[in-house]
Amino acid sequence: MEYVDIRYIGKKPKLKNPIFIEGLPGIGNVGKLAAEHIIESINAKKFAELHCKDFPPQVFINTDGTIKLVNNEFFYWKAQKRDQRDLILLTGDYQGLSSQGQYELVEKILDLVQEMGVKEIYTLGGYGLGYEIENPKVLCATTDISLVKQMKKYGAIFKKNEPGGGIVGASGLLIGLGKLRGLQGVCLMGETPGYLVDPKSAKAVLNVLMKVTNINLSLSALEKKAKEIERIAHQLKEIEGLSKEKSEELKYIG
Amino acid sequence: MEYVDIRYIGKKPKLKNPIFIEGLPGIGNVGKLAAEHIIESINAKKFAELHCKDFPPQVFINTDGTIKLVNNEFFYWKAQKRDQRDLILLTGDYQGLSSQGQYELVEKILDLVQEMGVKEIYTLGGYGLGYEIENPKVLCATTDISLVKQMKKYGAIFKKNEPGGGIVGASGLLIGLGKLRGLQGVCLMGETPGYLVDPKSAKAVLNVLMKVTNINLSLSALEKKAKEIERIAHQLKEIEGLSKEKSEELKYIG
Amino acid sequence: MEYVDIRYIGKKPKLKNPIFIEGLPGIGNVGKLAAEHIIESINAKKFAELHCKDFPPQVFINTDGTIKLVNNEFFYWKAQKRDQRDLILLTGDYQGLSSQGQYELVEKILDLVQEMGVKEIYTLGGYGLGYEIENPKVLCATTDISLVKQMKKYGAIFKKNEPGGGIVGASGLLIGLGKLRGLQGVCLMGETPGYLVDPKSAKAVLNVLMKVTNINLSLSALEKKAKEIERIAHQLKEIEGLSKEKSEELKYIG
Amino acid sequence: MEYVDIRYIGKKPKLKNPIFIEGLPGIGNVGKLAAEHIIESINAKKFAELHCKDFPPQVFINTDGTIKLVNNEFFYWKAQKRDQRDLILLTGDYQGLSSQGQYELVEKILDLVQEMGVKEIYTLGGYGLGYEIENPKVLCATTDISLVKQMKKYGAIFKKNEPGGGIVGASGLLIGLGKLRGLQGVCLMGETPGYLVDPKSAKAVLNVLMKVTNINLSLSALEKKAKEIERIAHQLKEIEGLSKEKSEELKYIG
Repeated sequence: MEYVDIRYIGKKPKLKNPIFIEGLPGIGNVGKLAAEHIIESINAKKFAELHCKDFPPQVFINTDGTIKLVNNEFFYWKAQKRDQRDLILLTGDYQGLSSQGQYELVEKILDLVQEMGVKEIYTLGGYGLGYEIENPKVLCATTDISLVKQMKKYGAIFKKNEPGGGIVGASGLLIGLGKLRGLQGVCLMGETPGYLVDPKSAKAVLNVLMKVTNINLSLSALEKKAKEIERIAHQLKEIEGLSKEKSEELKYIG
Repeated sequence: MEYVDIRYIGKKPKLKNPIFIEGLPGIGNVGKLAAEHIIESINAKKFAELHCKDFPPQVFINTDGTIKLVNNEFFYWKAQKRDQRDLILLTGDYQGLSSQGQYELVEKILDLVQEMGVKEIYTLGGYGLGYEIENPKVLCATTDISLVKQMKKYGAIFKKNEPGGGIVGASGLLIGLGKLRGLQGVCLMGETPGYLVDPKSAKAVLNVLMKVTNINLSLSALEKKAKEIERIAHQLKEIEGLSKEKSEELKYIG
Repeated sequence: MEYVDIRYIGKKPKLKNPIFIEGLPGIGNVGKLAAEHIIESINAKKFAELHCKDFPPQVFINTDGTIKLVNNEFFYWKAQKRDQRDLILLTGDYQGLSSQGQYELVEKILDLVQEMGVKEIYTLGGYGLGYEIENPKVLCATTDISLVKQMKKYGAIFKKNEPGGGIVGASGLLIGLGKLRGLQGVCLMGETPGYLVDPKSAKAVLNVLMKVTNINLSLSALEKKAKEIERIAHQLKEIEGLSKEKSEELKYIG
Repeated sequence: MEYVDIRYIGKKPKLKNPIFIEGLPGIGNVGKLAAEHIIESINAKKFAELHCKDFPPQVFINTDGTIKLVNNEFFYWKAQKRDQRDLILLTGDYQGLSSQGQYELVEKILDLVQEMGVKEIYTLGGYGLGYEIENPKVLCATTDISLVKQMKKYGAIFKKNEPGGGIVGASGLLIGLGKLRGLQGVCLMGETPGYLVDPKSAKAVLNVLMKVTNINLSLSALEKKAKEIERIAHQLKEIEGLSKEKSEELKYIG
């Protein structure tokens, strides 16, 4: 196995001027939630698996008792209307653990998508605020000034000096290293508290991405997940409240 | 010395359709205890030593004052009855320290055993519960759905979503990377508190493995070790209790 | 992309016996502040960008919403008077994250500047005192005993056994590895508390460097920055003081 | 520069059946103190310098203001009497920082000394006890059972299962990897509290090594250093005592 190992399932799909969309685990798991939601909604086909020696040495266990070595997975989808574009999508279990691993991984991913004709990259992620937010906005950063205007039209926002620390990880590196290759790139970051997985933020990201891709997705599944998470978050707070109350009662008695 | 360095002792044994069994250090040292117990019981022969630059830079000191560079060791055993199979066994002092090291090591181990004809892998380990348990069960995960049924017959159990974090380390990686090579694999994980070495859990694992291999092992040595560990654990608790008592006495006096 | 990747912007400048000056991020950001101040003041031209897999996997966001992959940048400047020398200058976002990365980076940087004719290296940094200082001095270390005398003339000082821990990072390594190649090197370290970015210390360093290079720089921008930092530091102290006061008030009431 | 870079000073010395002695920094700095003492006492000649990308990216500052890239250094000495042997000695600023670095370094060191005819290795180090000791003994571990007897004659001791954790670092690895090459090796470990540099322990180690090499060294310089260290340790304790006293006084007043 190479350091980064890519295996095709069946033969490589032939795509026409495809857009590449990445959503890997990260803050609030926003990017991964969003990417998985598109893949399921449009029924994209898996065509390649990527393993890497910079992923943890780990297998996951499927519900049927079989195992799966941690990986990243590539999917494709062919445009069905005139105003749509072919897509390559990437999601997975992990990003690289080390700096060097991240660079190596992103280079191999760019090699693959560039070979398949990609000239535009959209990377999806979360922007951790550290506090709760009712209506998450979608921050944006791009490789080209022309894309800034375009993305504003689609509802993404740009804030001076935000994120202050830049973008760390695959979402940043894909468009950063892509830019060095002459590829256009956009990173969409949904605002999120960052404590829990955040389907509400993923929904906000997809609202922008739907305009980019001219694909209409039902987001009700994400809304449902968002409500579940809210319910759980609420319960967690109640339990915390109760345990505080009880410990105060105990003090009173004791 | 290569990054992973394998040295044969004498000439490479010729085996017929051997099963590969791995038991390296890990949670409760269950895998290593189990593997060492088989090796000793069936008098398996060491045929290769593996050193690795991802092991600690360390030598151990034998009881006679001589040293031994930390390593992993391969053993073999030839079937003695009709319903038995030749075996290759692996145990050792350490697993790789880094993610990449783990991947490199497992790849070299698979190269070796595949070259010797292995098509089936059994990896042994512990499943850390964090609490004490009277009768440890043996959780299982496999590469193939057909093996799930078979392993259930042998007394291993499957729990949905357990271990939740998957399997980390050589035991998971050997069957995960093995699966990519078309090898069949089973990981047997004895339930264990995970605090101390756990011969009771190793015994549980061997009870399943004996059915897999049709080898009858006396497990009394492990039972004896288990009792010793229990005695020590008990003493540790008593000492803790005493020291608590004493410190309370001191408070009373002081 | 290579592990260390250097890309020229336009064609490589031809320089005559250039001096190489490095100022990368470090204690008090002294070196970087100083290097950036020279580059801006003399209007040096960027001629190469360096990316490295040992930098963080990160992009920064420009004020216009576009991104920039973290890097190091080379500049050049041609002498304009008889007593001046051509210059190559290096600054950037990061130093290498790992020991090996630092060595690899410095080797590549030395390859580049040596190929362009450099025989003398000046590295700029801070010397962290851990306490505040009114008039920071500039400590010095050199590759050759002859340079010690010269640098003393220019106002740099040498203290026996200081810095006691030597010089860690690019500033040390450039002259250390440079010495192995027969290059002359000087490290100038401005005394700094080390808590905040320190333009005052950068100014002190530049006062020495101006004598080395026979270039006259206006340092008023650094003075202005230094005053701002002092004002912020003062405010921070006041806030700390206030919050202490308030918490004491609270205790009094409560 | 290679990952491990060795540079000869002048031409490689020709030695007859030399013994290799290593003393690098470690617990109580015992090995390095001992090696440096021999080198100075017998006036051994430096013949090679070793730099490594796994050392810290650091230069030290000499008393004259010049710098020195951190390194390891090789020395040689030619036997002067019939019962003596030629020596190669190694000491230096650092051991490798990473596991892999340690392996790479030791392999290169063994390449060098083996090429110069070495068949016997003595490595010097400390054995950290964690408590003070009046008369440090010298623990020993060897590659061959025959050496155990010999070393006992010279006053080294062997304790079953000690050091329990084996020997970590260059001293262990040199004889561990050396053994794989068929080289004979002995590790001498002076007992030491391990808190401070320990010339007394180095002296104990040299008492054994003098018998191995038939070289008579004056150990008075080490004795003097040992007394200094003891004085400093004593002062440290007094200061601690005083500050405790004072803080109790303060409580009394306050």
